[in-house]
Amino acid sequence: MADIPTDAPSPTAGIPADATPFDDIRRLIATMPGPDEAAAAEVSARDSLLTKPAGSLGRLEFLAAWMAAWQGKAPPSLDRPLVCVFAGSHGVAERGVSAYPSAVNRQMLDNFAAGGAAINQICAAYGLGFKVFDLALDMPTGDITVEPAMTQKACVATMAFGMEAVAAGTDGLAVGEMGIGNTTVAAAIYAALYGGEPARWVGRGTGIDEAGHARKVAAVEAALACHQGHLDDPLAVMARLGGREIAAMAGAILAARLQRVPVVIDGYVSTAAASLLHAIDPRALDHCLAGHVSAEGDHAAVLERLGLRPLLDLGLRLGEGSGAALALGVVKAAVACHREMATFAQAGVSGPTA
Amino acid sequence: MADIPTDAPSPTAGIPADATPFDDIRRLIATMPGPDEAAAAEVSARDSLLTKPAGSLGRLEFLAAWMAAWQGKAPPSLDRPLVCVFAGSHGVAERGVSAYPSAVNRQMLDNFAAGGAAINQICAAYGLGFKVFDLALDMPTGDITVEPAMTQKACVATMAFGMEAVAAGTDGLAVGEMGIGNTTVAAAIYAALYGGEPARWVGRGTGIDEAGHARKVAAVEAALACHQGHLDDPLAVMARLGGREIAAMAGAILAARLQRVPVVIDGYVSTAAASLLHAIDPRALDHCLAGHVSAEGDHAAVLERLGLRPLLDLGLRLGEGSGAALALGVVKAAVACHREMATFAQAGVSGPTA
Repeated sequence: MADIPTDAPSPTAGIPADATPFDDIRRLIATMPGPDEAAAAEVSARDSLLTKPAGSLGRLEFLAAWMAAWQGKAPPSLDRPLVCVFAGSHGVAERGVSAYPSAVNRQMLDNFAAGGAAINQICAAYGLGFKVFDLALDMPTGDITVEPAMTQKACVATMAFGMEAVAAGTDGLAVGEMGIGNTTVAAAIYAALYGGEPARWVGRGTGIDEAGHARKVAAVEAALACHQGHLDDPLAVMARLGGREIAAMAGAILAARLQRVPVVIDGYVSTAAASLLHAIDPRALDHCLAGHVSAEGDHAAVLERLGLRPLLDLGLRLGEGSGAALALGVVKAAVACHREMATFAQAGVSGPTA
Repeated sequence: MADIPTDAPSPTAGIPADATPFDDIRRLIATMPGPDEAAAAEVSARDSLLTKPAGSLGRLEFLAAWMAAWQGKAPPSLDRPLVCVFAGSHGVAERGVSAYPSAVNRQMLDNFAAGGAAINQICAAYGLGFKVFDLALDMPTGDITVEPAMTQKACVATMAFGMEAVAAGTDGLAVGEMGIGNTTVAAAIYAALYGGEPARWVGRGTGIDEAGHARKVAAVEAALACHQGHLDDPLAVMARLGGREIAAMAGAILAARLQRVPVVIDGYVSTAAASLLHAIDPRALDHCLAGHVSAEGDHAAVLERLGLRPLLDLGLRLGEGSGAALALGVVKAAVACHREMATFAQAGVSGPTA
């Protein structure tokens, strides 16, 4: 675990110093590479030779081609999968929007470090690397019901910090989060991006009661009212409604694209980071897979807006990257099938007669 | 791999010699143990102490309790998971119902042994044991359009062979199959059990064309007409419409119940074995999980009739136990979370304030 630096070395070096912080991000997004169609075609060609009926591995076949397209190589690999969990602390948590106190943030970081959390077990079960990032947990963001969560500069610095989380050599990334109060923040972001009654986006989070849910709806309404007129730019939404973990995840997803690392998105809060990138450029998530559909809020509706079809539907609503890590386990099997299966010729198996 | 013995040592020793072969099976089914409710309750109690919001692991929490209930111990284990694939050869394959020739049966067995099939890669990815059983591949069953697949005695002997496949110490079993022509056999079984137009149950199998599909529908119709009046007893359906792999899988599912081993069922053909047990006694599948919903035929409708909710939906239609093995990977993560996560007290994490 590392503390977020106040002056994170920026991966955007070279961009003119007079540019606004948001301009740096927009320029980076404009440089995003597209899919490697040749690698995907090579996967499809090999797939047709493997000892199985055409199409019989369903989404596993799609996953192999998708990995190749975004890694830019065929066959794809998944030798160094990495789960990155970003932990943030939220001023709005003081509004009674969570069933748990903010003290849990630090305690859960210790639990991650000691190997006691759910995500530790899932990573161990599937041989996934795991890193946790402490985003200034002891310094909560501004209370979004009355002030911006972060300045523009802090928001971009946090995105830059997230960009550096993608370790060199990583060939598959799962992004996840932890932060008491962050389903409130995610709900506010969805309300800002997609409109509708704020209550439509508010779920039960860690399991809040009726009164707490009412406070959560009120907090989202207050946040939208407070920042009204300043929410047209998705990056402004990120800074004002925030969540440092959301900014860092957005940075990690973007950096992965630039480094040709396919990304598996986790649940309700992780998808909020993805939705902000998508609002800037709809192609920004083409290298992303929705690991699962969460039981929190109306995650299914968000995924539909983003054009993402979830791989798993297990009723999870934990966060910690848990659903994304489970999905990475499936991707691992998909890549193994594609790489290691024998061809009809190699195995001496007869092809179809028709 | 082993050849099916003509005189398989029976696990039903002690049953009077004058009993009919089917009576042996019925008596075994009557001895099936129920769930260990105390073990399941112990899992629920521990689950509520683990460092996560209550219910936030969704179906993973259910899987841990289900494993405990049917293993009869808390916490449950998944240290020796086993995937058993049963391979059969079908007289009806000569009716042009498959896109592949029956020669593929033996070739795929060699491919399994050489580690070149999809199921080999999935088992390697998740650390699952893997065994293949050759059910007299060189001696196809009778052509069900004109004669019974097997005699009653052969059917019960094949079930007994399947029962012995569950190696001692196995703590989680996935059942799968391979056999050119066996989606035709499965369709005939569903039509016999559930009625309706035979075509309603016929899928594309390994990817047959329109003319082949018509031959497949005709074969199922002919089989039902040929055996009309003899299909009231599910065990008679098993013997007449057969598939040795289907009888063996039914035996393995039943033996697992008696040995307290939870079972993950694979796709369209594996579920046909399960459906026959269910038709004898609706409680016979209480220890079974549907690993996935297959893209073959109307597997979803079959699972609904059996009251089984599939864990995965990945568009698979391969067989080989592939979907069940992927599901076992999820069960592995579920058991690991339950066993290895820290409790709130152990980790010093604050519980909910409400």
